Amino acid sequence: MNVKINYQPIGYIQTPFNTVSDMPIQPSGAEGAEGIIELDPGFVPGLSDLDGFSHLILIYHFHLVKGHKLCVVPFMDDKPHGIFATRAPARPNPIGISTVKLKKMENNLIYIEGVDMVNGTPLLDIKPYFAPYDNRPDSISGWLKDKSDIDIAKVKSDNRFCQ
Amino acid sequence: MNVKINYQPIGYIQTPFNTVSDMPIQPSGAEGAEGIIELDPGFVPGLSDLDGFSHLILIYHFHLVKGHKLCVVPFMDDKPHGIFATRAPARPNPIGISTVKLKKMENNLIYIEGVDMVNGTPLLDIKPYFAPYDNRPDSISGWLKDKSDIDIAKVKSDNRFCQ
Repeated sequence: MNVKINYQPIGYIQTPFNTVSDMPIQPSGAEGAEGIIELDPGFVPGLSDLDGFSHLILIYHFHLVKGHKLCVVPFMDDKPHGIFATRAPARPNPIGISTVKLKKMENNLIYIEGVDMVNGTPLLDIKPYFAPYDNRPDSISGWLKDKSDIDIAKVKSDNRFCQ
Repeated sequence: MNVKINYQPIGYIQTPFNTVSDMPIQPSGAEGAEGIIELDPGFVPGLSDLDGFSHLILIYHFHLVKGHKLCVVPFMDDKPHGIFATRAPARPNPIGISTVKLKKMENNLIYIEGVDMVNGTPLLDIKPYFAPYDNRPDSISGWLKDKSDIDIAKVKSDNRFCQ
């Protein structure tokens, strides 16, 4: 499979986390962590009507990850799992998704809450969160099911995927 | 912003939809539509423990889309909106996400339900759906809020973004 797909950042995400150590591992563990999307000004017309949404799905590039692993010990467990059964960043295509709260928008700056990515992360896409598309209240969560009681806010990342 | 990000497909998605006309526009409108992910066999070890999850988030490349638009009339409305306030495919980085049901797995084949992408779509990533990360029952949906009553199953795509 030698198809090459090329993307360019549409902007960058400013967050309080300058290193991957001790970051929250998901927005649900990042309550109150505020960030700013600095969008390339040329894309500002694409933001029209986004301000009516409470939540955004951000798609971004894990730019600090070095290589990929097919089996990882994720932050939420002490046992290995296949990379596609985890949300760990060391993926064959290191793409991250996070659902964050939209606070306000000013020109090319989008103020968000619940950020769980490192400062300076290249942003690839913004999608509006829409419950009929994105909510699955009846989902079953495999090995993560037993971890639902973990207080995600207390689980922090480290640099295991960046070395 | 001249950073280039290169990805390669990890596999391809087989679906019943050989053209973009008359496809469902979202998994919630694709009840029962079955597909098969044909994963590059080299990535099979990465699937370990995925079988315990009921739903997967697929991240894929809209390979048939020609160029991007900053303002679009999406399938769900007859008025234009900023591309980032829609789920339309003609995005600056044409990345799609869909949450689908996992039916069964056999070696490098993953049988799924609720597919809303064209046959042969290049797959970039598979993530397990995990409610604490992905559900936002309290979300507010801007212009789409008024469209919640639309029967999404009756809304079909056309080729407006592929010309």
